[in-house]
Amino acid sequence: MPEILIGEYLFLRLKQLGIETVFGVPGDFELALLDLVEPLGLSWVGAPNELIGAYAADGYARLNGLGALVTTFGPGELSALCGIGGSYCESVPVLHIVGYPTTPAQKSGKILHHTLGDGKFDHYQRISSELCCATTVLDDPTTAAAEIDSVVNAMIFHSKPGYIGISEDIAYAKVSNEYLGTKLARCLPPSAPESEAAVTTEIVSQLELAKSPILIVDGGAARASWAEHVDPLIQALKIPFLVTGLGKGIADEMSPYYQGCYAGEGSWPRSAIGLVQEADCILWLGNYPSDFNTGIFTEKLDHCTIIDLQRFFVNIGATKYDARINHVLPKLIPALSSHYPLAQRTKQNTQVDQQLSLPASNKIEQDWLWSRLTSYLRPGDLVITETGTAQVGITATRFPSGCHGWTQSVYGSIGYAAGAAAGAAIAAKETGKYKRLVLVTGEGSLQLTVQAFSMLTRYGIVPVVFALNNYGYTIERYFRGWDAKYNDIPMWDYAALFKAFAPDVEPRVKGYKVTTAEELDELLSDGEFCDSVVPQCVDMIMDPKDAPEAMRTVFEGKNAM
Amino acid sequence: MPEILIGEYLFLRLKQLGIETVFGVPGDFELALLDLVEPLGLSWVGAPNELIGAYAADGYARLNGLGALVTTFGPGELSALCGIGGSYCESVPVLHIVGYPTTPAQKSGKILHHTLGDGKFDHYQRISSELCCATTVLDDPTTAAAEIDSVVNAMIFHSKPGYIGISEDIAYAKVSNEYLGTKLARCLPPSAPESEAAVTTEIVSQLELAKSPILIVDGGAARASWAEHVDPLIQALKIPFLVTGLGKGIADEMSPYYQGCYAGEGSWPRSAIGLVQEADCILWLGNYPSDFNTGIFTEKLDHCTIIDLQRFFVNIGATKYDARINHVLPKLIPALSSHYPLAQRTKQNTQVDQQLSLPASNKIEQDWLWSRLTSYLRPGDLVITETGTAQVGITATRFPSGCHGWTQSVYGSIGYAAGAAAGAAIAAKETGKYKRLVLVTGEGSLQLTVQAFSMLTRYGIVPVVFALNNYGYTIERYFRGWDAKYNDIPMWDYAALFKAFAPDVEPRVKGYKVTTAEELDELLSDGEFCDSVVPQCVDMIMDPKDAPEAMRTVFEGKNAM
Repeated sequence: MPEILIGEYLFLRLKQLGIETVFGVPGDFELALLDLVEPLGLSWVGAPNELIGAYAADGYARLNGLGALVTTFGPGELSALCGIGGSYCESVPVLHIVGYPTTPAQKSGKILHHTLGDGKFDHYQRISSELCCATTVLDDPTTAAAEIDSVVNAMIFHSKPGYIGISEDIAYAKVSNEYLGTKLARCLPPSAPESEAAVTTEIVSQLELAKSPILIVDGGAARASWAEHVDPLIQALKIPFLVTGLGKGIADEMSPYYQGCYAGEGSWPRSAIGLVQEADCILWLGNYPSDFNTGIFTEKLDHCTIIDLQRFFVNIGATKYDARINHVLPKLIPALSSHYPLAQRTKQNTQVDQQLSLPASNKIEQDWLWSRLTSYLRPGDLVITETGTAQVGITATRFPSGCHGWTQSVYGSIGYAAGAAAGAAIAAKETGKYKRLVLVTGEGSLQLTVQAFSMLTRYGIVPVVFALNNYGYTIERYFRGWDAKYNDIPMWDYAALFKAFAPDVEPRVKGYKVTTAEELDELLSDGEFCDSVVPQCVDMIMDPKDAPEAMRTVFEGKNAM
Repeated sequence: MPEILIGEYLFLRLKQLGIETVFGVPGDFELALLDLVEPLGLSWVGAPNELIGAYAADGYARLNGLGALVTTFGPGELSALCGIGGSYCESVPVLHIVGYPTTPAQKSGKILHHTLGDGKFDHYQRISSELCCATTVLDDPTTAAAEIDSVVNAMIFHSKPGYIGISEDIAYAKVSNEYLGTKLARCLPPSAPESEAAVTTEIVSQLELAKSPILIVDGGAARASWAEHVDPLIQALKIPFLVTGLGKGIADEMSPYYQGCYAGEGSWPRSAIGLVQEADCILWLGNYPSDFNTGIFTEKLDHCTIIDLQRFFVNIGATKYDARINHVLPKLIPALSSHYPLAQRTKQNTQVDQQLSLPASNKIEQDWLWSRLTSYLRPGDLVITETGTAQVGITATRFPSGCHGWTQSVYGSIGYAAGAAAGAAIAAKETGKYKRLVLVTGEGSLQLTVQAFSMLTRYGIVPVVFALNNYGYTIERYFRGWDAKYNDIPMWDYAALFKAFAPDVEPRVKGYKVTTAEELDELLSDGEFCDSVVPQCVDMIMDPKDAPEAMRTVFEGKNAM
């Protein structure tokens, strides 16, 4: 019976499931494990720190369907936790593999570095169990393969992070390779087929009854698992659709049915609010009513029937069905095409095409910026947007067909986007599907993870980074501390940093600093800039108190309340 | 009865205990709390990210005795955990204050940003309870003051981190200010005075019996609490003494009794091993036998009586006494002075004065570097050294009198030193005790927290950063992966980074890149460099496989085993 190492088994399982790159930061408890990665045909991508590694694995998983991160016991894994928490919150399946001290060392009671000094080795697993759907620390070669499969299966089932602790002695113990013969499902299996058929019929029936149905593309049902069905659904429905902050970036916004981004009073354009108010039926893909995703709970939805498709169930009004979005959508689309009397009242919404002229102030004003990015973007762009003003602003940028992207709209961890962009770009490179990586971030966020610049320029990725440099945490100013010193941050030279993180990358990366709308407009129209084959970073000097229209509206409402 | 806000109560308690600066990163759940900081006469120091903030609070606490960090619920606090874990491991009392969503918001069950999306608000407290000696999330104004005191008391008692979750509504509820009248103890109270007297007598008696007693200054008993007694003890004992990696930086190494750093086979100089082997009695201040602190468990100690003074007990051989180091030492010192027949056999160890001449290779060789730094350092320097080769190497640098410093020798989290140095420098500035901040770090570690450069240059601190640039994780290469790609890291331009993080700091910060020993020697002899009033960073190009002698020795032994 041919045998393989348990560490090999782990990575081969990941490979079977479509993972080609593993992210992480080396640490001595994981080095033996890392020796196994590349000989199995996987790539190892080292991150400058574990938090960036976790964000990168999340970004990779959002495109690839599954991601993996390797860190070392203690400091390494703890440093990654904020990334794992975000993956949990937004249903991104990232496997966190942690290199543990050897089993004998754990049993010896000796004080190893990276421990808390108390001779105990179970603190960190308990910590991660709060942020993962399944955790294990392998301690028995005879059950290790089953334990690995159990965690990976749980991750795929729930679309949440998992945690596997593995020491050198376990990683190098042997196991029959026959276990690999039983393939793991790569996505959520169906529930009861009859239930899915029934709910499909009911949805079609509800839509037939409706006079002004709309579709909202959200992300609460783990959007990667059903994203491929969205455009076919829109084409079959032929009804107006909106996205949410969390749902933006998967639907074709050049569709004539596209109506903008819905987030209650934070919607863009404002006409989206009326559309929802006038709807008598909303087909909602993964409603995730978090504060940031709803214009801070300013949605008004009592007036209509909501058909909410979630990962594990479908709600139609007050009735809950045992059916799963990723299996219902492929049934719903043909059912709609043949039976659903098309809503013909949709007229193209010209507001979503808004192109503002250069601001009279010649400052890089937020509203102008987001409208200007619409014509800068191209098919094949991958657009990763940071939380903060950028997250709200980007909803006013209409993505071209074939453009994909996201923001971390629910968890809202500043610093996420730069790391996620690096991981996403590597996944994009593997598929060959996206050409240009566009990272849109605020400089307050960028300060947390600025060394991700180094990952962005290292792997033949061609990123364009737009840094909104507005002297601090503008979104925080809207919450509180309008002039507070704690919302200021030190001025950095982002263009110089971008270059200093990549002194030996050839051809040389480029950094720009732009202070006026006119300069930025010229740059965005410049063929060399737009077609650049070298990484670029644009430091955009902006007003500390300017914010996108949708944000101003929400906070005016909030402050008036 | 005069009332104050609970948030004010919290900060006034910290101020009573000697805290002048609070570190952190703003986030919306904590902004209301931050509004209270500066009006109370405390300083707020914003960190570029929470991990650096946590390291800075640790560095501040090691000098000040207590530190405080404020982060926001969820991503903010999780990002800080690796710092808190290190503080726990090395007994540094840092209070982690976390801004929580309001109590009504928590009870509403709504999905707030920064949560895991499951409507639960207790995950993060459970996580921190693994890394803190006490945690609370305040939810009742009537008990809040008592809860705050309880956590702070526990921190001071155990010299470990604590956690207080506080929401805006609680922070702005009122409490009688009379509670502030009852002062909290700033250090560990004595146990039974008769027990301390007995143990003091027994220690003196054991030392009188001993023919070749030595002292080892370690750090396992929470060193800050008794550091002030070390030099008086040495002067009273008049016997040879060694430090450990964790203990280095508090004793006066210019004492004629100084014999170097003991770490088993990783000792420097080698004569330290013989000294321990020949000792019949070791007076040990806070033995902390972790791997990194013992030359990877290569100590040999069976042959002699060990008197081990710990935080909560004293062990003499196999007997455990209920007595505490911080109260025993002040009794022991006068007892020794009057009764102890001085060991006269100590002769000055000339090996600890080693000054190597320029390497024939003219490369910046590790052994030469550490010996060279001895004459660069001055009284009044604060020297913070990173884990990795620097941590081992610095044991061969003899600190001048009045020079203080440390490395994170047990927890060993790479990236720690840059953040800790920023916090330490701020504490040093408050006391006026140290003039120059010297940060010695490897570039592999620096990559994790490089934006700490920005903190180092922001507050009128004058740091000198020495970056050992050896193309990757050299200490990892010694563990495994001698030529492995995973131990490589991208080349950055550290001098340029240093400047780009501080473009508006005046006078302009300086960055140097040195590639030869001669250049470095000249720089270290240059008056302008040594007396600089502007921040400086020296990028030192070194061999990827060179390591300090003590490290080579340990790993040769380890690999031979």
